[in-house]
Amino acid sequence: MNDTHPVDLLVEGTLVDVNAGTLEDRTIAVDGGEIVGFGTRPAAAKIESEYVTPGLIDAHTHIEASMVTIPQYGDAVVPRGVTAVVHDPHEIANVLGPDGVRDFCADADCTPLKARLTVPSSVPASGLQDTGAAVDSADVDELLGRDDAIALGEVMDLDGVLAGDDEIHAKIESARGRGLPVDGHVPGVAGKELQDLARHLDSDHESVELAEARAKVDAGFSVYLREGSTSKNLEDLVGLVDAVDPRRLALCTDERNAVDLLNDGGVNTAVRKAMSLGVDPITAVQLATVNVAEVYDLPFGRVEPGAPADMVLLSDLESWSVEHVLVDGVVDPTGKASSTAESALPTDTVTFDRVTPADLAIDHDGPGPVTVRVASAVGSFRTERLTASVPIETQGDTAVLCGSPEDDILPMAVIERHGGPGNVGRGFVHNLGLERGAVGTTVSHDAHNCVVAGVTHGAMARVANELRDIGGGFCVFDPKSDDCTTLPLPNAGLLSDGPAEETARAFEAVSAAARDLGLSVPGGLMELSYLALEVIPTYRLTNNGLVDVEDGTFVDVVAD
Amino acid sequence: MNDTHPVDLLVEGTLVDVNAGTLEDRTIAVDGGEIVGFGTRPAAAKIESEYVTPGLIDAHTHIEASMVTIPQYGDAVVPRGVTAVVHDPHEIANVLGPDGVRDFCADADCTPLKARLTVPSSVPASGLQDTGAAVDSADVDELLGRDDAIALGEVMDLDGVLAGDDEIHAKIESARGRGLPVDGHVPGVAGKELQDLARHLDSDHESVELAEARAKVDAGFSVYLREGSTSKNLEDLVGLVDAVDPRRLALCTDERNAVDLLNDGGVNTAVRKAMSLGVDPITAVQLATVNVAEVYDLPFGRVEPGAPADMVLLSDLESWSVEHVLVDGVVDPTGKASSTAESALPTDTVTFDRVTPADLAIDHDGPGPVTVRVASAVGSFRTERLTASVPIETQGDTAVLCGSPEDDILPMAVIERHGGPGNVGRGFVHNLGLERGAVGTTVSHDAHNCVVAGVTHGAMARVANELRDIGGGFCVFDPKSDDCTTLPLPNAGLLSDGPAEETARAFEAVSAAARDLGLSVPGGLMELSYLALEVIPTYRLTNNGLVDVEDGTFVDVVAD
Repeated sequence: MNDTHPVDLLVEGTLVDVNAGTLEDRTIAVDGGEIVGFGTRPAAAKIESEYVTPGLIDAHTHIEASMVTIPQYGDAVVPRGVTAVVHDPHEIANVLGPDGVRDFCADADCTPLKARLTVPSSVPASGLQDTGAAVDSADVDELLGRDDAIALGEVMDLDGVLAGDDEIHAKIESARGRGLPVDGHVPGVAGKELQDLARHLDSDHESVELAEARAKVDAGFSVYLREGSTSKNLEDLVGLVDAVDPRRLALCTDERNAVDLLNDGGVNTAVRKAMSLGVDPITAVQLATVNVAEVYDLPFGRVEPGAPADMVLLSDLESWSVEHVLVDGVVDPTGKASSTAESALPTDTVTFDRVTPADLAIDHDGPGPVTVRVASAVGSFRTERLTASVPIETQGDTAVLCGSPEDDILPMAVIERHGGPGNVGRGFVHNLGLERGAVGTTVSHDAHNCVVAGVTHGAMARVANELRDIGGGFCVFDPKSDDCTTLPLPNAGLLSDGPAEETARAFEAVSAAARDLGLSVPGGLMELSYLALEVIPTYRLTNNGLVDVEDGTFVDVVAD
Repeated sequence: MNDTHPVDLLVEGTLVDVNAGTLEDRTIAVDGGEIVGFGTRPAAAKIESEYVTPGLIDAHTHIEASMVTIPQYGDAVVPRGVTAVVHDPHEIANVLGPDGVRDFCADADCTPLKARLTVPSSVPASGLQDTGAAVDSADVDELLGRDDAIALGEVMDLDGVLAGDDEIHAKIESARGRGLPVDGHVPGVAGKELQDLARHLDSDHESVELAEARAKVDAGFSVYLREGSTSKNLEDLVGLVDAVDPRRLALCTDERNAVDLLNDGGVNTAVRKAMSLGVDPITAVQLATVNVAEVYDLPFGRVEPGAPADMVLLSDLESWSVEHVLVDGVVDPTGKASSTAESALPTDTVTFDRVTPADLAIDHDGPGPVTVRVASAVGSFRTERLTASVPIETQGDTAVLCGSPEDDILPMAVIERHGGPGNVGRGFVHNLGLERGAVGTTVSHDAHNCVVAGVTHGAMARVANELRDIGGGFCVFDPKSDDCTTLPLPNAGLLSDGPAEETARAFEAVSAAARDLGLSVPGGLMELSYLALEVIPTYRLTNNGLVDVEDGTFVDVVAD
């Protein structure tokens, strides 16, 4: 290094030094994308700001929850100071398997956001539903060898871990053999079971109560305090920051919906909220920088000589008022290519043949009414078991079970859409509130088949066929106007091909259209996306039929 | 795992939880060598103690400084609660190269002590002296591939790092490519040079002043507070623990002499001293457990499910009163074989031919007296430049330069002993205080040639030949009794083949014999071990002649 060569840039401000845990007035020299030292030097440029922090790192998120590609996500969060995310492309993996993970990650070349991969460990979620793909232990091993892979993604098969299941343990061993950590997914687990899991898993982000989170710290987990769009746990868990050495704690979002992403960004909102809840600002910044970097052995997350020049310049810390963001020394970077450049992901993932109303209905010879098993959507993605009585109606030549809209019992269907059997699971849902028309989506955790529900089978078929035609997304059909309102998500049937702003606005429009139809369940349209998730209680409808989750078995919709 | 199977052991006490940074009453279940959980369970055995901590880890040491093998070191420190050391076999590497490193580490199979290798990066120290071996970048790369290798050992060639020297950067890249950290050796460096070094080096243990150590923390170094036998820096640096987030600080010994090792153990003394200096006991334990584990990504250093059951059981924390030590679940382990089993190291490393007094003397035709350049040993391993006048004496047929004992100017010699040229560097030393006889050793940093000094060339030859005959060690010859007192160190000419107790007692005996001869230099016999270290100022004598270290050149002993 030529000492007389002026450095590229000096950054002046009060540094939140996450190593020392102090505030320091610093002039930070940046050259060749790297922080090279402190103190005034000859420099080509200089910027000043009140405060400087390392770029923030989200300890755990699923980018697909925002229905955007990684570059679009980057567009939304980098200007807010989030320069890196630890992400688990669990949804893409369910649709497209390892190839989809590679395609999804390939898009990251276009964004300054440093997207680091935790390899999906739990695809498919069960053997009960047809997914687009599986990620087996050989796939995991190969993906863990990628340069951007930093951990095994959240392990959900806790029974398999505890019972010594070969496949999940092979995945864990692949990570261990590479010296990589293993993320966990341990909601509500305590006592001996928690201890047993702690032997195999390193982190958890599912705590909702303080005592639960504390028990996980005590068991040796790195505990992430989650502040997402749906699960907002920070306020309940923030007491942990004072109760224990916060070095093992971090902040994560887990998921941000498109609207929140656009309006507020990502884990920056958690940092700001932590400060507003009384966490010392230095600690709050540590929770989303060095603490995450230490779990995953990341080279960024600190402002020190030799680190990449990823920094946030702010006029005020507690309000998180960002003036500039540096990534690899580039001020306010916009990425190497347009973030709306075509994704590497395929757009032909909604494969079923056009459906007729009869395809979505349950034949029944009568006599009616008939008692059926119904998934009652009670909000927060939970369902309760219900039995209800529904009438029989003749449609064309066939007698079928219809909904009972006055009791808010509506027909629903799940259509396999991954080039598999194309079969249809048929059933009923309670509590959506729809008074007319139908709603549907191909965002349907975890298998992401096409789920539709509506007042009539005709409206449902209209929605399903529209989703088929646009390559997936959300659709609301209003018979009053005879119009469909859609949010097209052509990339894997999960992600938009437009900028985040367009996606957010379209999601708001489709949500409003659904509310017009009477949709009133607390989680709105997203509630629909969990009605087929056959690993959380109670009743869930899959393309292969209705599952009683606690029993892990299929049950007939018709109760007797 | 069979849940009805009783675990091997329950450990009950107040746990110093280094993850949470709290004290917790715990019953810790141990099974199959591992910590499997907390809480009472069916168990085959149970032990109780007032306090429980993770086994201590010394963040940096050179075991050779104790003149014992790794198993003998383990015998001394494991019962004091030190269950792991991060060690740099820099001395062995200078004598025997990569093969010696492998042999030295192979001995560790016999001890419960977990010895983790940092690969010597700076062998030889210079090109001026003949060593037994070199460790080049290819050797480093191969050694870094070992299972026990966790870092590149302390990098001393700071000029090479700053100037972009290919060889040292290749070594650094080998470590980086494996995701391993790079230890530094950055005494007294500050300002821009420190920042520049921080880009390449991760840790430092050489701070002697608080401001120096603070600057290193600010530059992103992991800073180790050293408390060895010679360098005791903890008291001066302890203020750092309150000034910064202590997560980046650790405790190390760097070296423990044989007597201190036997009497007090290793880094346990630093933990105890930190507490006596007012460091919170939880923090003090963190400094020698989890903080070290995080730098080197070690699986131990915490008491949590899934960690190896390495624990210290104490009746009192602040006095570090150890009752039991567990390593991999074994209570008070003694190792798989006798710690005095034969070392894998060679014992034939002192290779020079028998010397005569004339071999060690400088011929001079006169007339005398003659002005000579002299290394004055002023203590703390420092030397100062001196010129002095010495007489000429005829020995046999030859006129040679003799010492001037009345001015404490004595002849000294450095004999190549590694199977190389076997040549002899001849010169003078001031301030040893010897009144009769001679002293010598093959422990002679870093090249570890045979260094002897004495009142007469005859006494010097007697010592050199004795060292040759015993395969290396320390020797003191007293002409009054015509006897040699020795500490044989046959393993590589550096390490004892007896237990630590025998080594310590023999070192005390040989030191006492030297004091009898008048040896009065502050560091005692160890001062002799640094008189040939041609990388620290000022004059140092090598087998190839007298070096003026600041100039990096050989100078004539005869001044004109």
